[in-house]
Amino acid sequence: MADPQFFKKSKSFTLAELAEIAGAEVMDAANADYEVADVAALDQAGENQISFLDNVKYKEQFTHTKAGACIIAPALAELAPDGVKLLVSKHPYKSYAKIAQAFYPDAKPEGYISDKAFIHESAEIGEGCTIENGVHISEGAVIGAQSWIEAGAYIGPSVQVGTGCRIGVNSTLSHCHIGDYSRIYTGARIGQDGFGFAIDPTGHVKVPQLGRVIVESHVEIGANTTIDRGAGPDTVIGQGTWIDNLVQIGHNVKIGRGCVIVAQVGISGSTVIEDFVAIGGQVGIAGHLNIGQGVRIAAQSGIMRNIEAGQEVMGSPAVPIKQFMKQVAMLKRLIKKG
Amino acid sequence: MADPQFFKKSKSFTLAELAEIAGAEVMDAANADYEVADVAALDQAGENQISFLDNVKYKEQFTHTKAGACIIAPALAELAPDGVKLLVSKHPYKSYAKIAQAFYPDAKPEGYISDKAFIHESAEIGEGCTIENGVHISEGAVIGAQSWIEAGAYIGPSVQVGTGCRIGVNSTLSHCHIGDYSRIYTGARIGQDGFGFAIDPTGHVKVPQLGRVIVESHVEIGANTTIDRGAGPDTVIGQGTWIDNLVQIGHNVKIGRGCVIVAQVGISGSTVIEDFVAIGGQVGIAGHLNIGQGVRIAAQSGIMRNIEAGQEVMGSPAVPIKQFMKQVAMLKRLIKKG
Amino acid sequence: MADPQFFKKSKSFTLAELAEIAGAEVMDAANADYEVADVAALDQAGENQISFLDNVKYKEQFTHTKAGACIIAPALAELAPDGVKLLVSKHPYKSYAKIAQAFYPDAKPEGYISDKAFIHESAEIGEGCTIENGVHISEGAVIGAQSWIEAGAYIGPSVQVGTGCRIGVNSTLSHCHIGDYSRIYTGARIGQDGFGFAIDPTGHVKVPQLGRVIVESHVEIGANTTIDRGAGPDTVIGQGTWIDNLVQIGHNVKIGRGCVIVAQVGISGSTVIEDFVAIGGQVGIAGHLNIGQGVRIAAQSGIMRNIEAGQEVMGSPAVPIKQFMKQVAMLKRLIKKG
Repeated sequence: MADPQFFKKSKSFTLAELAEIAGAEVMDAANADYEVADVAALDQAGENQISFLDNVKYKEQFTHTKAGACIIAPALAELAPDGVKLLVSKHPYKSYAKIAQAFYPDAKPEGYISDKAFIHESAEIGEGCTIENGVHISEGAVIGAQSWIEAGAYIGPSVQVGTGCRIGVNSTLSHCHIGDYSRIYTGARIGQDGFGFAIDPTGHVKVPQLGRVIVESHVEIGANTTIDRGAGPDTVIGQGTWIDNLVQIGHNVKIGRGCVIVAQVGISGSTVIEDFVAIGGQVGIAGHLNIGQGVRIAAQSGIMRNIEAGQEVMGSPAVPIKQFMKQVAMLKRLIKKG
Repeated sequence: MADPQFFKKSKSFTLAELAEIAGAEVMDAANADYEVADVAALDQAGENQISFLDNVKYKEQFTHTKAGACIIAPALAELAPDGVKLLVSKHPYKSYAKIAQAFYPDAKPEGYISDKAFIHESAEIGEGCTIENGVHISEGAVIGAQSWIEAGAYIGPSVQVGTGCRIGVNSTLSHCHIGDYSRIYTGARIGQDGFGFAIDPTGHVKVPQLGRVIVESHVEIGANTTIDRGAGPDTVIGQGTWIDNLVQIGHNVKIGRGCVIVAQVGISGSTVIEDFVAIGGQVGIAGHLNIGQGVRIAAQSGIMRNIEAGQEVMGSPAVPIKQFMKQVAMLKRLIKKG
Repeated sequence: MADPQFFKKSKSFTLAELAEIAGAEVMDAANADYEVADVAALDQAGENQISFLDNVKYKEQFTHTKAGACIIAPALAELAPDGVKLLVSKHPYKSYAKIAQAFYPDAKPEGYISDKAFIHESAEIGEGCTIENGVHISEGAVIGAQSWIEAGAYIGPSVQVGTGCRIGVNSTLSHCHIGDYSRIYTGARIGQDGFGFAIDPTGHVKVPQLGRVIVESHVEIGANTTIDRGAGPDTVIGQGTWIDNLVQIGHNVKIGRGCVIVAQVGISGSTVIEDFVAIGGQVGIAGHLNIGQGVRIAAQSGIMRNIEAGQEVMGSPAVPIKQFMKQVAMLKRLIKKG
């Protein structure tokens, strides 16, 4: 299904092999040797292709799918149309992810260093790195083994990039350390001065920004996202946190492990986000706050106060999600009355 | 009026010639030969310059204008001050656009290919292209005739760019096809991985993003806007759609023809926007929704449900625009009472 | 405290010298000769380091600080723990800014021009400039003395950059003048076409954008921010205005002096922002409005009407801040009743 000009498929697998890869079970053992050649969407898949159902919104598509095989939660298996071979998984989307990775392993160039990159003689480049055309690597920078620095990326003085990282086209890294296996997307800006100054009618007075950005390992930072360095303390992005496109993260912000931050979120200076927080698109969070572990914030919310661990909030200013729904319902009723 | 260091004027026109260009009529035939040398704003225009009135907010400026000529809707012609020659048009702003294009045709360099661009030997470059310094054109990429690739732009492997396109400074194209006569502004990012993963406490599992971005013809995509490629299906931007700066478009989104999407809008994954939809600035739209043909969404709205064709909505969560106005009025009344 | 790999400290100062630099007073004259070697945060500072207390939220940290010295407002001096030497200032944050600048003066390379920059032969480069690798300077551009053009930045035809400017990595300047001592951060886009067209079902008709962007002196423009050039009039950013990351400024907008515009704000076309306006993060402002001098707009507000000088507003649509707080309180009460 994937355009072969852009994506290179590895090989075919039996359903049993895929079950192993996916942490799933072949529902009917008679199908264990069924050959699967590719992944595809429910409404496009055909013979020898495997699809998945995760979002129940697409249940209807599932009942009509022509897919040869399908990954499905146990409770929904009975809805399968005749002839579709089933892989049963408690986490169908995660199982699909692993299967798709098997068919389409990450493209990664064999290491080479372009002679059209600008590399300072004092920079250290690890083994097996790929450094593309027009890359700038500054004095004292260190690039870990197997890292891939894409065209036009800028690595500032003394920046450290870990092992197995991928730094996107025309992105900018300064005053930062990037942990192992992290990926910075095209156009992201990491490590510039935070927005720090004392307001003065004769001219704002700049506060030197003396911290760094510490990006831990297995982090993803989206396209055109901006992360300012700390003012004194560091700005920190915790291990395994994923950040989408066009997000703004202010100076001194500390983000924990395993968080998910959707596009166009803004987090103001010195706020702390604990582990496993999920933040919807376009949320704004004021400065100097604490957002507890596992908090979930709905899209477009505005956060002006600390939020305790485990809460789900919505609205601007944000309130617990049930209270928000009551507000919306009440406004409707009042208007009908009025 | 335009700074001649930045803009090159073509020549003078008679009012009759401009009427022809603009789909308008010279109100008083005696003025058909009046020579117009330039365009200018109502409050700055003088002799031999033509201006326009479209937004009634500027009516006052119109009644005092010193412009030699003016484009005006029939109903407002009687407000014209003495001596201003009138071009009457049902669509004054469109007529102005065409006249301004005649005075200031698009700057376009004569084709040339910089020897300081990085062009893979397998890439195909059409006739009459301009390829500026520091451009990267990757393996298997195809650039259509008369296209203009500005300095530092990156064209990824197998990307196809149509005829007469303009690809802005330091922008990034990967995993995409760009239709004829489309324009990508500086810093736009098109075709990177969508934000797709299965959440897992031991580390989110990446879902390979196996689709493309298909940008049809006559599309404009603003500065620093990001458009992720599909996860399996393609992300599609329909013919003649205009997208402003800093917009985020998620994976699998389908946008129809002739849409207008203002700055800082975010559209989540797999949502479908039908033809001729207008979306105000900073709107957020959730994933997996359908926005019907001709829908108009006011700035800063939040869309959590499907919207039927032709509706006008506002607010977060969005409601029909009249209902939103009632909410606002009612809140005001209740506070006065309280 | 600051990582010496990234930041170079100048030297030590006595408390009396720092008082002079900071416009502050040594509280106990006996401490005038106390030697201060560095700045540090309240909770990290130790002997011979100076910290400050400005935000009362951190009062608790102050009462336990181990800092050798601290800058403090007169009213809070009595809270100081024993042994902390005090510098008393009416504006502790501004005093800190000046002291931190003394310890860490702006890094600035000695002037040099990379032979790997692309500089048109007609461009004028002032004395003492630094032009890094991969910079593009186009025909007729003028760069003032002592300016620093960072790697991969693009300076378009006829652009004028003043004295002592710093133009960030991979940023784009076209159709603009940049005043003295202004700083453009990495990835900012200044001077591209505004979003101007006449809507038409057969294809929107582009309105040529014939104005410029005029950035006055001592302006800061954040990372990945976009500022469109005027449609006929110019877009203007007034002296000493600071703009954060990912902000969008539409064509013809005029911003006065000394304004502060936080991240992800959007300002629509032709709006006028008077002097000393402060705009919180993610605010949206409609087009053709006037925002009076000294107005303060809370984060995430939506502005649909003119705002008179001196007002403080909040909400979408925005209302005076007290009215907004009443709305929030009333909604809470009504839900409890309901």
